[in-house]
Amino acid sequence: MKELFKEEKLARFTKDIVKKLGLGEEEASVFSDSLIIADLRGVASHGVIRLPTYVERVETGVLNPRAEMIMEQTGNAAALFDANNGFGQIAGHRAMSYAIEKARDHGIGFVAVKNSNHFGMAAYYAMMALEAGMIGLVLTNSSPAMNPFGTIVPLLGTNPLAIAVPTGNAKPIVLDMSTSVVARGKIRHAALTGKDIPVGWAVDAEGKPTTDAKKALKGSLEPIGGPKGSGLSLIIDLLCGVLTGSSLTGEVKTVTDMSGCARTGHVFCAINIAHFRNVEAFKNDVDAIIAMIKGLPARTAGAVYMPGEIEFNLTAQRKQEGIPLDEAVIETLNSVAERYSVARLS
Amino acid sequence: MKELFKEEKLARFTKDIVKKLGLGEEEASVFSDSLIIADLRGVASHGVIRLPTYVERVETGVLNPRAEMIMEQTGNAAALFDANNGFGQIAGHRAMSYAIEKARDHGIGFVAVKNSNHFGMAAYYAMMALEAGMIGLVLTNSSPAMNPFGTIVPLLGTNPLAIAVPTGNAKPIVLDMSTSVVARGKIRHAALTGKDIPVGWAVDAEGKPTTDAKKALKGSLEPIGGPKGSGLSLIIDLLCGVLTGSSLTGEVKTVTDMSGCARTGHVFCAINIAHFRNVEAFKNDVDAIIAMIKGLPARTAGAVYMPGEIEFNLTAQRKQEGIPLDEAVIETLNSVAERYSVARLS
Repeated sequence: MKELFKEEKLARFTKDIVKKLGLGEEEASVFSDSLIIADLRGVASHGVIRLPTYVERVETGVLNPRAEMIMEQTGNAAALFDANNGFGQIAGHRAMSYAIEKARDHGIGFVAVKNSNHFGMAAYYAMMALEAGMIGLVLTNSSPAMNPFGTIVPLLGTNPLAIAVPTGNAKPIVLDMSTSVVARGKIRHAALTGKDIPVGWAVDAEGKPTTDAKKALKGSLEPIGGPKGSGLSLIIDLLCGVLTGSSLTGEVKTVTDMSGCARTGHVFCAINIAHFRNVEAFKNDVDAIIAMIKGLPARTAGAVYMPGEIEFNLTAQRKQEGIPLDEAVIETLNSVAERYSVARLS
Repeated sequence: MKELFKEEKLARFTKDIVKKLGLGEEEASVFSDSLIIADLRGVASHGVIRLPTYVERVETGVLNPRAEMIMEQTGNAAALFDANNGFGQIAGHRAMSYAIEKARDHGIGFVAVKNSNHFGMAAYYAMMALEAGMIGLVLTNSSPAMNPFGTIVPLLGTNPLAIAVPTGNAKPIVLDMSTSVVARGKIRHAALTGKDIPVGWAVDAEGKPTTDAKKALKGSLEPIGGPKGSGLSLIIDLLCGVLTGSSLTGEVKTVTDMSGCARTGHVFCAINIAHFRNVEAFKNDVDAIIAMIKGLPARTAGAVYMPGEIEFNLTAQRKQEGIPLDEAVIETLNSVAERYSVARLS
């Protein structure tokens, strides 16, 4: 059973909780925004469902909600921030804002962040560039889940990248993708519901292709395009983990691992279109390309969708109808609410 | 039958030819370098085998070997160059050199190039960053060969990206990959030798998966990871084609199409490691990660290879033994040589 919640209600709830953890008004808004926008876009895995886990990280002392982010290096266009083990959402929002500011003057802004935490949905930060008339690019590393090509050990993260490109009348292009064939969550879901998975999603603990979801969970996710996805994930890790001096490959802790700091690293980049050409001309060209692609013969019956389009459609729908939450999720959220003397969701 | 040629001999030959086309000494060296290094790395498709095609572009007047590249926009860290329909290799080398120069002062350098041509092997330019202690990133768009996800028409290019990361004692990491599952050349080879291709490489003209190489050539290459590779290719095109104002998706001409200018666009980016942390510490960390990955249990018997490692090994071998060329290729090169009164290869 699912219940529908207006975004304002979930945002208020989320803000109330994280303010109790020590976040200021503005920080709480950013944090709640990032979760609610994920839920609106249908990316439930990065939505309010994660709130209890974030709270637990604070409670166990492996995340510092009052961390002061420090600017370690700045230049005209590039910077390194130390998130000091604060919320990835707060670090991410500040870092992307800074990248956009830098790109205003210099055409490009590039901000790397070290000692951060799980920042939720990468697209959230990439999309911040859109209003500024810029292209946003966001990278993050993540905990081990995927084998380096040719090996059988899940050392690499699924290390996602997100890119947002402004448009005129069309919906913005927002690509948000991991470097693995599928998210681990899809395999977990198949295991829970007793379903097989397609060949190519994962290998078992011996590195053999498997359709058994339970064996896959003990094994490793497969990278897209074999050595290509594996290489991309490694490069994202070298930028987010090593360029920042945050962690070596394999060292990032998953958000549910309470045994220590996550040591996640991110990269935020903004490209100022106006530095290169007239922004309206750029947007018109992108609109024309979108129209061209959407006008191509579809492979199967139905429309052709651009990256992010389904998520924009779902956002419009959920802004009207509300965001659906499972009863079990509501219960978990309410138990957090009670612990912090915040009004229950329902 | 193959004959082996010392790299110096092929370089001299290539330089002699392109100097006859109007390139100066330094430009001719860059051009020949980019081809010979591709051959050394085993990327024959971007080696001297291409020389007759480049010459033909000049002869038919669709490429201007004496083009003056113009700096249209510059900032502290970002720039736009107009290659004015000159050689992609010359434009690429200048643009990447400029990106490296900019990154020295500003932490990052980002140079986009419009109205360019096929620039050969992307890794060549990315690797230029290595000696400067920087990470190099190179993107280029290319002619239509791959379907946007969900469609059956090859509108997108295989739009490659190359990234080079400096190391200490280990061989540098050099990822050079297209966004398609395989290169079109592999399917062409299968068609010529009457072999089937694996499912997943391509679709036929009706958008149906096919193992028939001939049908695949009339159809479309498949992107890696479905919507992921398709989205990446589109983004690379928006950066190289649209941000530069060079061309819309689908408009770039392949190097063998002599009906007009290619209107290729590229992006060159250098990230100055020293701006973020101690370069030696960075390199040591990357070395440690490489050792860790190469020490993982391999999926099949044999070593685990890092991106670019096989190419470095082959380069060492070919620097000793020479570069193998087919008799047919030698013949074609010699017929160009005769036309330009240059000494034959053999």
